[in-house]
Amino acid sequence: MHFRSLDDIRSACRDLPAGDAASVAAAAARQDQLTKPTGSLGQLEALALWLARWQGRAVPRLDDVSVIVFAGNHGVTAQGVSPYPAAVTAQMVANYAHGGAAINQLATLAQAKLSVVPLDLDRPTQDFTAAPAMDAAQFLAAVNAGYSAVPARCDLVAFGEMGIGNTTVAAAIAAALLGGGAGAWVGRGAGVDDEGLRRKQDVVERALARHEALLGDPLAVAMALGGRELAAILGATLAAREHRVPVLLDGFVCTAAVLPLLKLNADALAHVQAAHVSAEAAHRALLTAMNLAPLHDLGMRLGEGSGAALAILTLRAAVACHAGMATFAEAGVAGKA
Amino acid sequence: MHFRSLDDIRSACRDLPAGDAASVAAAAARQDQLTKPTGSLGQLEALALWLARWQGRAVPRLDDVSVIVFAGNHGVTAQGVSPYPAAVTAQMVANYAHGGAAINQLATLAQAKLSVVPLDLDRPTQDFTAAPAMDAAQFLAAVNAGYSAVPARCDLVAFGEMGIGNTTVAAAIAAALLGGGAGAWVGRGAGVDDEGLRRKQDVVERALARHEALLGDPLAVAMALGGRELAAILGATLAAREHRVPVLLDGFVCTAAVLPLLKLNADALAHVQAAHVSAEAAHRALLTAMNLAPLHDLGMRLGEGSGAALAILTLRAAVACHAGMATFAEAGVAGKA
Repeated sequence: MHFRSLDDIRSACRDLPAGDAASVAAAAARQDQLTKPTGSLGQLEALALWLARWQGRAVPRLDDVSVIVFAGNHGVTAQGVSPYPAAVTAQMVANYAHGGAAINQLATLAQAKLSVVPLDLDRPTQDFTAAPAMDAAQFLAAVNAGYSAVPARCDLVAFGEMGIGNTTVAAAIAAALLGGGAGAWVGRGAGVDDEGLRRKQDVVERALARHEALLGDPLAVAMALGGRELAAILGATLAAREHRVPVLLDGFVCTAAVLPLLKLNADALAHVQAAHVSAEAAHRALLTAMNLAPLHDLGMRLGEGSGAALAILTLRAAVACHAGMATFAEAGVAGKA
Repeated sequence: MHFRSLDDIRSACRDLPAGDAASVAAAAARQDQLTKPTGSLGQLEALALWLARWQGRAVPRLDDVSVIVFAGNHGVTAQGVSPYPAAVTAQMVANYAHGGAAINQLATLAQAKLSVVPLDLDRPTQDFTAAPAMDAAQFLAAVNAGYSAVPARCDLVAFGEMGIGNTTVAAAIAAALLGGGAGAWVGRGAGVDDEGLRRKQDVVERALARHEALLGDPLAVAMALGGRELAAILGATLAAREHRVPVLLDGFVCTAAVLPLLKLNADALAHVQAAHVSAEAAHRALLTAMNLAPLHDLGMRLGEGSGAALAILTLRAAVACHAGMATFAEAGVAGKA
C-alpha cells in the first residue's frame, strides 16, 4: 500500500482485517489440556491466544521477530524542551549502528532483528508553536516509510523510537486528541528540571492554541503536532494490521503515535499489545484512555524500543509454554477431582 | 553447613554475610556513563546493582543459573483443601523429569539448569489440624536438603515448589506469623470452588487454634504448620546467603516459606528478589508485609518456579544492558546540556 492522501489512510482505517477466530479457538482448546490448572499461566495464556489470533496459527511461533526503531528530529527543540541537544538523535542512530545502545543488547537477547529507520534527520520538522510540524507531503512520506518498513511475513514486530524532543510531541498529540490540557500530558522525558517542565507545558499550550481549528481531525493532529518517527509508527502499525502481524508497542511516544488510529477506528489496535507502562508520568493515563493493558511496569523510560524488546522475552515464554508443554493425557497427570 | 537443631538455624540467621558495597559503587559509576539518560532503564538498573552486590562483581554475570524446584506432600490434603488428588505431586515430578511442564519450557528459555528435589513424597507430613506437620528431625532433614541443593558457586538461583495442598500450608504460616486470621491469607490455590475455599479457611483456623502455643516462634511455626518443600526453600535461601548467591523467589508458597527467616532477622532477605506477584489472592499482601517488591504482575499462579524462571529473562536483560552498552565517551554521544 502507498498512501497518496490523508483520505487514503482514513479509508484503510475503515476496512481493517480481522484476526483468526478459529486459530484462537484451537489454541484455547490446547491450552486447557496442558499440565497446569486452567488459567494458571495468567497473561502468558492470553498472549498465546492473541498471537494465535493474528498469526492465524493454533500454535503460534516467534521464529522471525523484528524490532524497528524510527528516528526523527523536531523543530520544537529550539524551545528548550529537552536537556539533550538535537544532535543526539543522529549520534544515537550511529550508536545503534555500532551496537552500543540498550536496544542492541535487548534485541540480541530477544533474538530479534533490529532495524533502524532514520527519517530525514537533517531536515527537522517545523517548530509547531509557529507552524504545522509537517505539511501533507512530509507527513505522508513518513507514514509510507513506516508502512514499508514492516515485513509482510513475520511473526511479530516491535516498534521503538528515538527523537530528542519527542515526549513534548507525544504530549501535544495526547492533549489535542484526549483533552485535559498540557499539564495532564507533559512529563520530564529524558530528564528536564522543573523550569524545563514548565517550558514544555507552555510549548504544548501554545501549540494547542495555534492549531485549535484542526484538533477534531486525528490525522491533521498527527501532521501538525506530530513528528516523522511518530507518523512512521502510525504507518507501520497499519501495515502490520494489513499483514496480520502482531505488534508490540514501546512507551509513551509510541503509544501517542498510534492514538490517531484509535480515534479513526476503535478496533484499530486489536493487533497491538502495549509492552510496558513507562515512568514517563502520563503514560499510564494514556494507556488507560486507550484501553491498552501494559505487560510490564519496570520504571523504564528510555524509549528506542527497549521496553518492547524486553516484552518479546515474555511472549517467547508464552509461546514456549503453549507449544512445548505436555497435555494431562500425554504426561499421565490426573486432572481435577 | 548442616543444621543439627533449630538453634543452629537461629544462630545462622543472627550472623548473615553482607553484600559487597564496593562492587555496587563500581557498577553504579559504570551505569552513569552508559548511553542513556540517568535512571532511564528503571528496575533494570536496580537489578544490575543488586546482582553486583551479591555476586561481588562490578559487572555481574548470569553464566551459571539454576532453577531448583522442591516438592513435598501434605497430610492436610485429607481435609479436601485441593481440587487435585495428592498423587499429582509425584505425577508432576515425573512430568518435570520428562520435560513436559511449564517450568521445563521456561527454564530452557531462560538458559537455566533445572533441578527437581522431591522430599519424601511417599511420606506426607502430618495433617496439621491434628498434629504438628513435622517433628524436629523431619523439619531439619528438609531444611538441610534445601541447604545442600544450592551450588556454592553460581550466579543466580531461582526457587520453585510443587505440592498439592501447599497454598493452605502457606496461608497457615502467613496467618500464624502475621496475624489477620485465615480469611486474610487463604485463596483458591490451584482452583477450589467456594465450598473448598471455606474448607481451607476452616482448616487454617483449626490449625492456628491447635498450635496457638507456638505462634511466637517462627521456626516452630515452619515445623508445625509448614511442609517439607517450604522448609527446604527456607534452607536453600539460607545457603544462598551463606554463598552470596542472589535468589529469585517464585510465588505465594515460596514467599511464605521464607517469612520465618525474615521474622528471625529483618535483613535475612536482602539477597532475595520477588520474581512476581501471583494471582493467588493473598500474595500481594504477603509481599507488602515482607517489604518485597515483585518484578512482574502477570496473573500467574502455577508455582513450580514458573514466575521465577520468567524473571530470569528480565535479569538477563539487566545484565545485557549493563555489560554490553557503550559509554557516552565510547559512542561519541553528547551528554546533558
